[in-house]
Amino acid sequence: MAPAAPPSPTPETTPSGHQLFTRIRLATPSDIPHIHKLIHQMAVFERLTHLFSATESSLSATLFSPTVQPFHSFTILLLEASTTLFPVSTFDSNPLFKPLTEVVNLRLPFEDPERDTFKSTDDVTVVGFVMFFPNYSTFLGKPGFYVENLYVRECYRRMGFGKMLFCAVTKEAVKMKYGRVDWVVLDWNVNALRFYQEMGAEIVEEYKFFRLTGKPLQASGHTH
Amino acid sequence: MAPAAPPSPTPETTPSGHQLFTRIRLATPSDIPHIHKLIHQMAVFERLTHLFSATESSLSATLFSPTVQPFHSFTILLLEASTTLFPVSTFDSNPLFKPLTEVVNLRLPFEDPERDTFKSTDDVTVVGFVMFFPNYSTFLGKPGFYVENLYVRECYRRMGFGKMLFCAVTKEAVKMKYGRVDWVVLDWNVNALRFYQEMGAEIVEEYKFFRLTGKPLQASGHTH
Repeated sequence: MAPAAPPSPTPETTPSGHQLFTRIRLATPSDIPHIHKLIHQMAVFERLTHLFSATESSLSATLFSPTVQPFHSFTILLLEASTTLFPVSTFDSNPLFKPLTEVVNLRLPFEDPERDTFKSTDDVTVVGFVMFFPNYSTFLGKPGFYVENLYVRECYRRMGFGKMLFCAVTKEAVKMKYGRVDWVVLDWNVNALRFYQEMGAEIVEEYKFFRLTGKPLQASGHTH
Repeated sequence: MAPAAPPSPTPETTPSGHQLFTRIRLATPSDIPHIHKLIHQMAVFERLTHLFSATESSLSATLFSPTVQPFHSFTILLLEASTTLFPVSTFDSNPLFKPLTEVVNLRLPFEDPERDTFKSTDDVTVVGFVMFFPNYSTFLGKPGFYVENLYVRECYRRMGFGKMLFCAVTKEAVKMKYGRVDWVVLDWNVNALRFYQEMGAEIVEEYKFFRLTGKPLQASGHTH
């Protein structure tokens, strides 16, 4: 049944309306400059720039292994947006991951103050990313995924993009018959805590997260 | 300078004394029955048998990938003990990991009530294991290791074996120029908390550990 008046403020049938076309695809080595900027922006948001030392070349040297396929090692899915339809591309025929697309209808024209910094191709802008890799549960006797980062640029928040990225990972986990998806959230990030709890995820309260890094790691690795 | 009297209660020079020879080596598919028993024992110790569903065949189907080398994917190092010297074996010439050995001098002859269950070869008994795999820090722009489990059977505790296993991992992390080693500890396990803190590791107090598993994972992976 057709909806009654008032007419929709988001005219789905008008291609010239305020539509945002989005796409999640596997990142490639040529995305590293954008990925590096997104990671740095996330470090600023998390007030952890003192821990940030990644460079484009350190990322380049350690990501995108030529011998291990995505999902079986470190994997990055990128979220892009465009005000026009995405043209057909080689991503569409990638046998490892078929891009996920969605159209978002907006009430107002979209303004991205960082459009030039995150411009991918003519009409396409990089919006966010999710970085994850396999982990393993000996109790379940099978792998899972650990989500290292999920980040959406500020002007694109509260539009469902975080959930799109997260569900791209859980969808793959279910497809691969993996047992669980794990990640950590900073305790002051109440929006993130709420976001994940609303999706049915639970905090494992009895876990103390340990880390050995820097000099203590060097010392431990050289003794014994 | 030689130590003064009293004479050492652990006669290092007497091969017929109470010595325990130990070896850390890469696990192989034929170790799965022992690994499965160790994991179950750990689940009992952690009071988490309700989460234990691994079988020998689920472990067998998901560990020891033929295409990815140890340390680049899920990896298990086994600790074995023997009252006699380990004979020369193929493990000694494994280019991926040269076994780490140590001799422990004991005041009394060693009694292992589970010797038959964990017997490997004639004189060799499986004592414990560490299970770990690569993780990735986008802030550091490089990989690290995540330690999923470290377990030593009860009668072998308080003899330095946990540290031997842990340092085998940190040593490899340093060798591979990895940035950090992460793991979680159950908050009631005060011995484990103390053990790791004494090694210079720190608890990342602001991390809330999230997990999505079972039905909520299935639901999340099938929506969207």
